[in-house]
Amino acid sequence: MAGAIRRLAIRGAPLIGVAAAYGMALELARDPAPEALARAAEVLVGARPTAVNLAHAVERVSAAVRANASADPQARAQIALAQARAIERDEEEASAAMASAGADLLAGVRRPLTHCNTGALAAPGGGTALAVVAELWRRGGVDGVLVTESRPLLQGARLTVYELTRLGIAHELIVDSAAGGLLAGGYGDAVVLGADRVAANGDVANKVGTYPLALAARAAGVPFVVVAPVSTIDLACPSGSEIVIEQRPPEEVRAVAAGPLTLGEVSARNPAFDLTPAELITALVTDRGVASPPDRQSLRALLSPPAQVLENPA
Amino acid sequence: MAGAIRRLAIRGAPLIGVAAAYGMALELARDPAPEALARAAEVLVGARPTAVNLAHAVERVSAAVRANASADPQARAQIALAQARAIERDEEEASAAMASAGADLLAGVRRPLTHCNTGALAAPGGGTALAVVAELWRRGGVDGVLVTESRPLLQGARLTVYELTRLGIAHELIVDSAAGGLLAGGYGDAVVLGADRVAANGDVANKVGTYPLALAARAAGVPFVVVAPVSTIDLACPSGSEIVIEQRPPEEVRAVAAGPLTLGEVSARNPAFDLTPAELITALVTDRGVASPPDRQSLRALLSPPAQVLENPA
Repeated sequence: MAGAIRRLAIRGAPLIGVAAAYGMALELARDPAPEALARAAEVLVGARPTAVNLAHAVERVSAAVRANASADPQARAQIALAQARAIERDEEEASAAMASAGADLLAGVRRPLTHCNTGALAAPGGGTALAVVAELWRRGGVDGVLVTESRPLLQGARLTVYELTRLGIAHELIVDSAAGGLLAGGYGDAVVLGADRVAANGDVANKVGTYPLALAARAAGVPFVVVAPVSTIDLACPSGSEIVIEQRPPEEVRAVAAGPLTLGEVSARNPAFDLTPAELITALVTDRGVASPPDRQSLRALLSPPAQVLENPA
Repeated sequence: MAGAIRRLAIRGAPLIGVAAAYGMALELARDPAPEALARAAEVLVGARPTAVNLAHAVERVSAAVRANASADPQARAQIALAQARAIERDEEEASAAMASAGADLLAGVRRPLTHCNTGALAAPGGGTALAVVAELWRRGGVDGVLVTESRPLLQGARLTVYELTRLGIAHELIVDSAAGGLLAGGYGDAVVLGADRVAANGDVANKVGTYPLALAARAAGVPFVVVAPVSTIDLACPSGSEIVIEQRPPEEVRAVAAGPLTLGEVSARNPAFDLTPAELITALVTDRGVASPPDRQSLRALLSPPAQVLENPA
């Protein structure tokens, strides 16, 4: 399971959390020893550094098992599985809540622009930002969705386009760098995307390319809306500068799919995410409401009373 | 020649101008009739709409031939060829002047970021922005160059990386959307790129993705420097909003090289350039000096006295 997360066979912050929780349950079914629990947690949390859902979900399963330390091995494995199922159900409900709140917030938007993939392939239920886009479409009035291809791994071109096609939602694919000019020209009237981690001050780590979209949205005077379940908020992380940005293999920049597109040995730099300061974010839509703008106060209010899933996994 | 320009076998604003001038000379050698001159001019100017060098060069050749209307056909063809050679020589001198002025301006920069291709494959001599980068490197102190891949046609990954490798200049290739975060993080301390057309108020039309880089440079507090010969300035165009942005085939977004990378029939939008407002531009480096910032006054000063090549081709 950690390997699947590391090589992006499973990706999308909420889905990574759910998958890791099931990974914990699988490992406990295989080896019920307490050391196995800690080892599985370490391997899974270490699979990718940026999405906080991973650590949150693993800690939630670990805590439930630890709270039943006296149970027999089979019972402990069942407790882990029940927690994984509960996390999945929670994320499905979160998706529905975000879809509704986001569509309310963006009423009147005719051509939302979205980045990377945030639909059913990234999160249980309908996803995060793409669930909002789909709900906006269902309510009518949307002309079409602008989809960034999201280099280097092309989640927009490969996954979002597939999901929108399946849902029957009109869309146009663009190269990432075309978004700024299209927003400035009035084509595209909102940016709606997900998050891998939201820091306590509202800073957001998300797919590389998110920050330039925030700058472009601000310059164009259109809303820049981040859609993420509260399981993605990390109050233990004071601001974006404390978030570790994953650096992925240069091969992803050098090639597209199987084909090389430049010199074989060219040096490449390949950050998988970037940071968007809170001040550029119009609103954060969560399953518990909208922080508009997201800041210490509005995020604390969203999380009051704090849920177990949000505790610092220390 | 018009076909080669249209399918980008020849590209880069200054090189398009030079090639079109030679195209005029070729056509006059083939058919010396006055109607042929006007027809060749129309076909060549219509090959691509954004780069003003094309119209400027064609008009410069046409004017020289018209001024010798009484000459015999061979002499007229010779006059056209001489003008084409003069345009090429002027652009070579312009490149050297820009390299020197740009390197003076950017003294101390250690990791310039450049976009698209602006070297010897885009302009006679050493090019425009890449000539500045190469001169900075020769003067010492540059750690390496950040190269955006420049989707959809990957001029950065395919051409700039090749040119820098040939010149022995250290470099790293990034996806376009990674530039903003890298600049914000202090990696990369200047943006240096070319222009396809500079309007009278300093607005710049250049390769799609230029505008987001300008926003990111402004936000990071690093200089955003456009390098272009004065042949790229169009005083007849009041501002960026009057510049026609070429829309290129969606196939370029759908695929990389020969391989498809998304659903075969996905809708796509494919502007080849975007607009960067003058207010985001730190300086325009030309062969006649630096406009810092570029505005009506500084551009007029650069162009005083106006050169023949800069007259409205109308």
